[in-house]
Amino acid sequence: MLARKLIAEALGTMLLLATVVGSGIMAENLAAGNDAIALLGNTLATGAILAVLITALGPLSGAHFNPAVTLAFLIRRQIGAGLAAAYIAVQLVAALAGVALAHLMFEVEVVQFGAQARTGAGQWLAEAVATFGLVATILATLQARPGAVAAMVGLYISAGYWFTASTSFANPAVTVARSFTDTFSGIAPADAPAFIVAQLVGAVLATTLCGWLLRDGAAGG
Amino acid sequence: MLARKLIAEALGTMLLLATVVGSGIMAENLAAGNDAIALLGNTLATGAILAVLITALGPLSGAHFNPAVTLAFLIRRQIGAGLAAAYIAVQLVAALAGVALAHLMFEVEVVQFGAQARTGAGQWLAEAVATFGLVATILATLQARPGAVAAMVGLYISAGYWFTASTSFANPAVTVARSFTDTFSGIAPADAPAFIVAQLVGAVLATTLCGWLLRDGAAGG
Amino acid sequence: MLARKLIAEALGTMLLLATVVGSGIMAENLAAGNDAIALLGNTLATGAILAVLITALGPLSGAHFNPAVTLAFLIRRQIGAGLAAAYIAVQLVAALAGVALAHLMFEVEVVQFGAQARTGAGQWLAEAVATFGLVATILATLQARPGAVAAMVGLYISAGYWFTASTSFANPAVTVARSFTDTFSGIAPADAPAFIVAQLVGAVLATTLCGWLLRDGAAGG
Amino acid sequence: MLARKLIAEALGTMLLLATVVGSGIMAENLAAGNDAIALLGNTLATGAILAVLITALGPLSGAHFNPAVTLAFLIRRQIGAGLAAAYIAVQLVAALAGVALAHLMFEVEVVQFGAQARTGAGQWLAEAVATFGLVATILATLQARPGAVAAMVGLYISAGYWFTASTSFANPAVTVARSFTDTFSGIAPADAPAFIVAQLVGAVLATTLCGWLLRDGAAGG
Repeated sequence: MLARKLIAEALGTMLLLATVVGSGIMAENLAAGNDAIALLGNTLATGAILAVLITALGPLSGAHFNPAVTLAFLIRRQIGAGLAAAYIAVQLVAALAGVALAHLMFEVEVVQFGAQARTGAGQWLAEAVATFGLVATILATLQARPGAVAAMVGLYISAGYWFTASTSFANPAVTVARSFTDTFSGIAPADAPAFIVAQLVGAVLATTLCGWLLRDGAAGG
Repeated sequence: MLARKLIAEALGTMLLLATVVGSGIMAENLAAGNDAIALLGNTLATGAILAVLITALGPLSGAHFNPAVTLAFLIRRQIGAGLAAAYIAVQLVAALAGVALAHLMFEVEVVQFGAQARTGAGQWLAEAVATFGLVATILATLQARPGAVAAMVGLYISAGYWFTASTSFANPAVTVARSFTDTFSGIAPADAPAFIVAQLVGAVLATTLCGWLLRDGAAGG
Repeated sequence: MLARKLIAEALGTMLLLATVVGSGIMAENLAAGNDAIALLGNTLATGAILAVLITALGPLSGAHFNPAVTLAFLIRRQIGAGLAAAYIAVQLVAALAGVALAHLMFEVEVVQFGAQARTGAGQWLAEAVATFGLVATILATLQARPGAVAAMVGLYISAGYWFTASTSFANPAVTVARSFTDTFSGIAPADAPAFIVAQLVGAVLATTLCGWLLRDGAAGG
Repeated sequence: MLARKLIAEALGTMLLLATVVGSGIMAENLAAGNDAIALLGNTLATGAILAVLITALGPLSGAHFNPAVTLAFLIRRQIGAGLAAAYIAVQLVAALAGVALAHLMFEVEVVQFGAQARTGAGQWLAEAVATFGLVATILATLQARPGAVAAMVGLYISAGYWFTASTSFANPAVTVARSFTDTFSGIAPADAPAFIVAQLVGAVLATTLCGWLLRDGAAGG
């Protein structure tokens, strides 16, 4: 039923952003200026909630929570164009709601704009790599061991927070939403479009490569 | 058999509180004033013990350890009123015993009262969100993949320690018990009732939403 | 075949001790005096290696690596007295070898004696609680979900490093071996016997309680 | 199909090195000089990506990513000499590409040479132990529970980063590649050959021991 799919997608994306932004605020508040300690808390919370949300909501909506993932399934014709558009719209609105929820919980201004510059060729490469890896992880794990997708996405993003220079936004809805917070996880709005372009490039490349790599019969469970 | 259920529920709740309070004491003792490092230790211990206790004791009592969870199952008519009342009574007593056990192990005063203020609209919203998420995680995972509930609760609370402004008490028995410790995890007794109200609101909302979202046939394993 | 069982038990116990002691040395060397950070590294390594060793070696020897666990299975008549004695002897020798291996890798004196005082009623209670919880986790998980024992032991000890005042030695062979290192994880030899007595009390209590709690038919997978 | 095997092996090894080196750079940049905090981030990322890459790519190529592992399967005649040689060549080239990718993302010199001395009997013993443990973990887990290999390798290396004095390179391709970075994870090129010799000794010893320990019928799932 469509309403259930969209509500599940909204709920998951909202809680994902509340976690990314909320745990960033908590971590920065407590870490006494040591950003590595703050990133450890931010990573732990984000990786854990991804595993939970995808496990709990996967059977309802597929648990995309990410326009780049929806795009990959659209290219693979595993979701129709109309539903994909609805998913992406819901993801964007819910991501913003998640940021607002985090701001309300931590009693900071509800509407903010990011101030942290995140730009340059290294960061753009990092976002393309991060999203390539995320989409490839999802597609390859769906073929290798479908029941492990939730855990693998949580673990992949946990690694991505550290191994990519941009800390792996890897999600256009997350990128838009994080441009509306001036806290640990924020990004200057002017830097968001290039991140999103890089993410879409990474998603398309991963979908194309996996289309060949995982062709029927190429691998088995 | 009733006695086994209640003993399992008591054992689990007691060890949960011993872990929450004990790891808080250990973490604060060692962290040299960096509360983010202390919260990392507290999170690791709490998330791990939840996964263990629910896995080990789930088949015996359902492993609620939490009046808000028992309330959710009561609303869903998956537990009778009499047994639910017994569960909640046991949870409260065992939670207090767990705090006392932590105090005895760390050789501090056995009976203490919390002094840390935890109040305000942001914290109350955080407790409602935290408990909403916990109950929704349990109900959705029970339908999506029952064998994953223990891991998902451990991961959810690990995230909640960081993304909610209140560090996710999310449990009325835990809240009462933590008002009896003046250590890292304590709460001033005067602030406990509002937390509990917020938790019950979150639990009822999650149960209601999931009643619709997870209606028979809405999702599959 | 007996030789394979004993070699598996020796290999696992040796690597367990090399990890406990080695990661303690590494952590203390790097942590610049913040013991909570050091304990995080020590916890991560110990919990991870326990899950690995029990998964990999469980089918060969049962993966006890711990005289308190062997005692519990002896009481339950799941291991004979002769084999139990052989297991315990091997565990003790291999634990000492593991400490020596850690010392050799970190190029410190191979034979040392612990200097850190770990004594008092709180610590003894902590060791009884730690071992009670470990044995109960193993016995209850073996009935509830046998395939999860390795993960649950790793998670339980990860929690125990933080929630018990003694950091959960919970193992007489580990206790003897750690009295032969004057590094992060060491214990003064004079304090070891009381730890071991407390551990055995905890193990016997857990075996007795579980004998009733997990009686045939009391729980199901 | 051969091309798919080699591409999978290349992709995995490249992302593994990008993670090891990239997370080391991120961690050192943020950790304000506390190397234990840096190693926590480095460990978290490396352990997580190993579990992801082996799960996702295992069915395609076996997910060796490591000449020492390929050697073990060659000795066991589970891979032919020609394919093993191709695997090792691909692993070496891809590992170098992964280091370059990390350097590009973090906008440092693409071609560097390690400066950190890692030498001495303790370190060599550590590498032999680390690789012995890695190969034994893989072979024993493949027999005990094949579906757990990915998780066990991630956990084993997470422990190895802390319990071995050398932080467990345990992989000749990783060792060569890390001699081409002068960042947190680097090694002086002159110190690499001894590491590789020690790793091969450890791999051969583990393969030999497991050949006896895991003989048909010696263990069961």
